[in-house]
Amino acid sequence: MPDLKKELIAMESHRSLFEEAIRGLQTPVLPVFQKGSALVPVAFDKVGETLTGKDDAAVKALFPRTTAAHGNKVLRISGANAKPMKGLRVAVLFSGGPAAGGHNVVTGLKAILGKENTLVGIKAGPKGLIEGKTMEITEADCRLIQNTGGFDFLGSDRTKIKTPEQFEAVRKTCREQRLDAVVVVGGDDSNTNAAVLAEKLGPDGVRVIGVPKTIDGDLQVASLLPISFGFDTATKIYAEMVGNILQDTPSSRKYWHFIKLMGRAASHVALEVALQTRPALCLVSEEVAERKYSLADLVDQVAQVVVARAKKGLQHGVVVIPEGLIEFIPEVNALIAELNEVLAHHEAELGGMDLAGKRGFLAGHASEACGKLFATLPEYIQEMLLLERDSHGNLQVSLIPTERLLMDMVKARVKAIDPGVKFSSLNHFFGYEGRCGVPSLFDAAFCYNLGLTAGSLVLAGKSGYMAAVTGFDRGGEALGIPLTGLINLERRHGQNEAVIEKALVKTGSPAFRFFAERRDSWAASDLFTSPGPRQLWGEVSRQVPISVALNQGYGSIVMNLGGKLAKATAAKKASKTPKKSPKKAAKKAKKSKKK
Amino acid sequence: MPDLKKELIAMESHRSLFEEAIRGLQTPVLPVFQKGSALVPVAFDKVGETLTGKDDAAVKALFPRTTAAHGNKVLRISGANAKPMKGLRVAVLFSGGPAAGGHNVVTGLKAILGKENTLVGIKAGPKGLIEGKTMEITEADCRLIQNTGGFDFLGSDRTKIKTPEQFEAVRKTCREQRLDAVVVVGGDDSNTNAAVLAEKLGPDGVRVIGVPKTIDGDLQVASLLPISFGFDTATKIYAEMVGNILQDTPSSRKYWHFIKLMGRAASHVALEVALQTRPALCLVSEEVAERKYSLADLVDQVAQVVVARAKKGLQHGVVVIPEGLIEFIPEVNALIAELNEVLAHHEAELGGMDLAGKRGFLAGHASEACGKLFATLPEYIQEMLLLERDSHGNLQVSLIPTERLLMDMVKARVKAIDPGVKFSSLNHFFGYEGRCGVPSLFDAAFCYNLGLTAGSLVLAGKSGYMAAVTGFDRGGEALGIPLTGLINLERRHGQNEAVIEKALVKTGSPAFRFFAERRDSWAASDLFTSPGPRQLWGEVSRQVPISVALNQGYGSIVMNLGGKLAKATAAKKASKTPKKSPKKAAKKAKKSKKK
Repeated sequence: MPDLKKELIAMESHRSLFEEAIRGLQTPVLPVFQKGSALVPVAFDKVGETLTGKDDAAVKALFPRTTAAHGNKVLRISGANAKPMKGLRVAVLFSGGPAAGGHNVVTGLKAILGKENTLVGIKAGPKGLIEGKTMEITEADCRLIQNTGGFDFLGSDRTKIKTPEQFEAVRKTCREQRLDAVVVVGGDDSNTNAAVLAEKLGPDGVRVIGVPKTIDGDLQVASLLPISFGFDTATKIYAEMVGNILQDTPSSRKYWHFIKLMGRAASHVALEVALQTRPALCLVSEEVAERKYSLADLVDQVAQVVVARAKKGLQHGVVVIPEGLIEFIPEVNALIAELNEVLAHHEAELGGMDLAGKRGFLAGHASEACGKLFATLPEYIQEMLLLERDSHGNLQVSLIPTERLLMDMVKARVKAIDPGVKFSSLNHFFGYEGRCGVPSLFDAAFCYNLGLTAGSLVLAGKSGYMAAVTGFDRGGEALGIPLTGLINLERRHGQNEAVIEKALVKTGSPAFRFFAERRDSWAASDLFTSPGPRQLWGEVSRQVPISVALNQGYGSIVMNLGGKLAKATAAKKASKTPKKSPKKAAKKAKKSKKK
Repeated sequence: MPDLKKELIAMESHRSLFEEAIRGLQTPVLPVFQKGSALVPVAFDKVGETLTGKDDAAVKALFPRTTAAHGNKVLRISGANAKPMKGLRVAVLFSGGPAAGGHNVVTGLKAILGKENTLVGIKAGPKGLIEGKTMEITEADCRLIQNTGGFDFLGSDRTKIKTPEQFEAVRKTCREQRLDAVVVVGGDDSNTNAAVLAEKLGPDGVRVIGVPKTIDGDLQVASLLPISFGFDTATKIYAEMVGNILQDTPSSRKYWHFIKLMGRAASHVALEVALQTRPALCLVSEEVAERKYSLADLVDQVAQVVVARAKKGLQHGVVVIPEGLIEFIPEVNALIAELNEVLAHHEAELGGMDLAGKRGFLAGHASEACGKLFATLPEYIQEMLLLERDSHGNLQVSLIPTERLLMDMVKARVKAIDPGVKFSSLNHFFGYEGRCGVPSLFDAAFCYNLGLTAGSLVLAGKSGYMAAVTGFDRGGEALGIPLTGLINLERRHGQNEAVIEKALVKTGSPAFRFFAERRDSWAASDLFTSPGPRQLWGEVSRQVPISVALNQGYGSIVMNLGGKLAKATAAKKASKTPKKSPKKAAKKAKKSKKK
């Protein structure tokens, strides 16, 4: 008993059985980085294609040095790097919201930089780079953080470096820390910032490399970068939760669950989770905008499925909802814009009014369309729309509880279609629990190889590139993507701003098309799957995101990354080849139908 | 590509990579059930202790047949059953909310009943037993459901069988189905119901056995039944989510998360999750009631920790809150009771009033204490307390969003203590996602052996017992617990009702005492752990609930269940013996502190 207490106290501070075991997990490494048991940096050639954005000329004018240096050409590996640079001091920082695998980017960097170079950690994100908050990262640190979740080793923040003073402060940090390179781990904005830093710090001899992070999955570059890191872990965490709830529905046989998933504007997360779990319904924001669905259309679509299933005795189901949905419904956008106008222009009159008063006032001042739509909304949403404004007088759309709004409106619609249908419902939002989980084997391996790639780019003297890994079905390939090749100009606050455009779900993509082919069957009867908790060991651990496999044209959803391990998998797979499984499974499925 | 689509379609309806793999998972079986590769039923003797409840005489009077038959003696195994009964038709049903592992109770039953007896599934719970909804369970069914989560194979419901008509209907079903025994898988109420059925169906020659299920963990019998099934899986699912969020806090460095966990009245779930994750704070309802804390006390306790951590630069943390907390705060109970009275006696006057009116009216009619407390509550809570009543005029306390209430009141209190402290917060409720996940190895093994035990009790001609498994640290022991030995009388709706009392957290228990010893350290600095997703394969998969290990006096948290596998574990453990680990880990922990 005293022993057990000692054991439990020894487990505090990241020492649980699982955390101790995970540090020892072997993750596949790209063969190109392997020389016997040692890791070697690779050399790059500009043998890749040239990336040309829609604002190519303007972007080249904004980034003359970088674009002249790399001509927006993708870097591909030309073999081992015979003369890697030495004595470098390389800094790494996390930027923006955390995503699983970030720690492995650091350990990958440390491993490839080796003993002849120094890895410096920037604490608390871009802010730390400005304020010069740094630490030297040791091998002992890396042993502790290997394969662990979160960004807590260094911390992160959302500071955007753009003012002359900020750039000067960054230069100061680079001088004082004698930095030769900075590796920025972040999303679209952070990588845009990395491109700017690469341009600005060039003259100081400081190279800048970006690493693609975001659970939202909206940082993708066709076949060059199938997905950003963190997406696989987040979607597997949400898919387990959604799968658990799906499993609950025919068990308790009485609830509809409306589940909103984190993921910002794009619907990649919702689509991937739907592909993994096959729920009755999944809404995709990009399709809603494309087809100009009204809120009433969406509510009716869901309600019709509820009624149809009820007629078959299925009084349960799951609706998956992307976080950004509300902003993709054209009429809702129009309503919010108009409300912002009205409220701004009549601040004085509206000042003292309560909800009822404001509602009446609005009826007199809003367009008919908006007035109609507004009247259909539940009171708590009307309140939000009328009362809650940020300092700029805008509504924070992200605060609208879309899952509850849909649930309540569907309830009313179902009653209107068929008062006989029983409809009990619950709503959920899965978000923060998906950002800092322990990385899936995919993200752990992806990130470690991203670290090896970023480090190799630095040791090859490159700057202004984003490290990338692709070909998860063929052993894996490391690339350098010219950041300026991804940048377009966007009108923000009345001026052109350089931005890496967020990749939204394409309704023409193989992943969406497959979803669209299957969704009616998923709605008609329970065909759901419950993919379970992500496993870090064994065959099951090697699943890649289904949307990635479909969009990249992979032949299977089992990851094939790294030389030796890849073969091992192939061998294992022989025992249950995908070729056979469909028939076999179909047969078994029949049996299960009998129940 | 077409291959991949086929593969994906073949995965629909419980055929994901994970679900296919999990069906093949070997779970440890108690040596006593093993004869070579075959499974054999065991015989039982009344060699165990006698259970004597506080209402022993009254209970014996209520259950004369059963108590005369087994004398409330615990059954212990007396070896293999040489003459197991044959040609029996045994029914099994799920009762109440789903819990992980139920399907393995069914497969365990099927395996031990063998080909010479028939296993009948009752569809949709007790209601199905009344309505005679049955199906024969085949070996093929069992191969499909082995180790899967949920109760969806049979379904469940919450019907309580108590009227003469209902009992007659059950008799009819037993006659028509020629049932010799009924196995009831459920919680405290369902097992009470099982005891009643055993007494009532005795004359018809129908035996009844209960199986202890509930994620709440409030069905425990000292060393005879350390825990009910489903608790381990639910707490491991919640612990991963809480651990992920804990990992997020020092990464984004700005949020306090208030997390309510499902678990009904008892705080077992919250306590276990706290022991697994070591958050800054975890409230325990039973302690709150015992120490007669006021709501203000609780709010202040949390606020003081928030302020103290802020002074150390920790602007983040996690507060774990048990679902039942609000009902354990004496003054809140008093307030609700008083409000129920006032609202009931002044229905007419209050009818037309809005919130403001009711608030004023209340001020005039409620006691000073209640008036004061009421005034401290946020408006949305005041609304609930005044407006929402069920058909009996009672407030559904479970609807109160305790996590949001505490969060908002703590925010105000922090501001009062030190306006300089930044306090951003988010709230969560983890519930349904924990009931139907795939069972942990612990629950999968526990349930399969519960099925073998329940089946053995039936084949030994026993009735009125609950199947139990204990000794998870010493290979495992199967028992039969006399249900009437657990029953007390409780005053409900003005009459004595037989009930199995819910086991609450004892503040004197080793688990609570250990938590109480450590919590100040957990509050003072980040010592949290992130136990990760439950693994189904490998050493990490064998962790038992920490609260069970502490309360049962186990020497380790690694499960030792079943003969052969138990040895295998011991061998594996040798490589990293608990004895050594504390020192080693402590040393490593030092290092990690340096960061």
